[in-house]
Amino acid sequence: MSLKRENNYFNLVKERRSVRYYDPSITIPREEMEEILTEAALAPSSSNLQPWRFLVIDEKELKEKLHPIANNQNQVLQASAVIAVLGDMKWYEKGKEIYSQAYEAGLMTEDIKDRFIASSAMYHRLDDAKKKSIVDIDGGLVSMQLMLSAKARGYDTVPMGGFNAEKFKQEFNVPDQYETIMLIAIGKAANPGFPSVRLPLNEITFWNQII
Amino acid sequence: MSLKRENNYFNLVKERRSVRYYDPSITIPREEMEEILTEAALAPSSSNLQPWRFLVIDEKELKEKLHPIANNQNQVLQASAVIAVLGDMKWYEKGKEIYSQAYEAGLMTEDIKDRFIASSAMYHRLDDAKKKSIVDIDGGLVSMQLMLSAKARGYDTVPMGGFNAEKFKQEFNVPDQYETIMLIAIGKAANPGFPSVRLPLNEITFWNQII
Repeated sequence: MSLKRENNYFNLVKERRSVRYYDPSITIPREEMEEILTEAALAPSSSNLQPWRFLVIDEKELKEKLHPIANNQNQVLQASAVIAVLGDMKWYEKGKEIYSQAYEAGLMTEDIKDRFIASSAMYHRLDDAKKKSIVDIDGGLVSMQLMLSAKARGYDTVPMGGFNAEKFKQEFNVPDQYETIMLIAIGKAANPGFPSVRLPLNEITFWNQII
Repeated sequence: MSLKRENNYFNLVKERRSVRYYDPSITIPREEMEEILTEAALAPSSSNLQPWRFLVIDEKELKEKLHPIANNQNQVLQASAVIAVLGDMKWYEKGKEIYSQAYEAGLMTEDIKDRFIASSAMYHRLDDAKKKSIVDIDGGLVSMQLMLSAKARGYDTVPMGGFNAEKFKQEFNVPDQYETIMLIAIGKAANPGFPSVRLPLNEITFWNQII
């Protein structure tokens, strides 16, 4: 069965659902995975510092190692890959590189580049809770775009928060510097995702004041 | 000038940029804003508990009140609205409502509904740091989809992390229960957003092991 690509955003956003059953015979080609990740990383981030990192797990033995760490969820074994979305707690160290690149591409004046580099260094002084919050939020942004970019190419995903984060870091030799924001299983659906409900808009939205 | 709707996801994702100059004469109709928020809220969330809340600020006096709290950023005054994306730190209290609704819609058996309600209650026992992380991540997911849903309708956005969160909660009477995840200005662009650079994929991606 061929993949159903879906270019139309309005359809895409409605059709994306969390899928827990995958066709284990389907491997996403490395090149296509790179395309998905590159597109995801067009997401915005705090001062454009892009704190996200991706650990793509697609080797059979590693998926088997991950399986018990992720509550024995079936999709870990069946999906083409599981992507660990990591947050680099020292993300601001890439400020000089990012802004210099923007300057060289003619997108910033030298003066603005220097000011951005100076301000990126200030993130260093934030406390860990604030740092964690920034990488979590930006990690959420990039993850949403990643799931949509997968769906646009006919793949499905499921974001997973239920895993042993400490054990994961230990078993996959994740340096202390990285926080694991979520795991995303990605592959070709074997069964469609279930529809789910949403709270009515008036329960989640306030207009001008919270009442 | 009419709005440029963009249905095609692949274009959309490339064309979305942070826009800081808006046409102050353009107001997004309430109905269209509801459409954007409803679509954004199709994002996935931890156990589908949808911890996000939106405070839409579109009254002139309130935008003026917000302006100094958000570092006097121009877009606060010019944009059609600023949406404060909030995270409800007691989001799990809606578990019973959400899963009962899913059960009534025939999307869950009664047994599964009861198990989900029981497990949603367990979020209560998490420490505040873990709770904060969940609302931040899910808040990031919904914010990304919100910005894309705006762009698909011809509007632009800019996510803003630079504001005085304490003062914001105080001046806008935001109950303690809510954390402010980010502010998103939304409206019709007066000037296009600047292009920006991204780190090369090989600097942010690891394949199977972190080296």
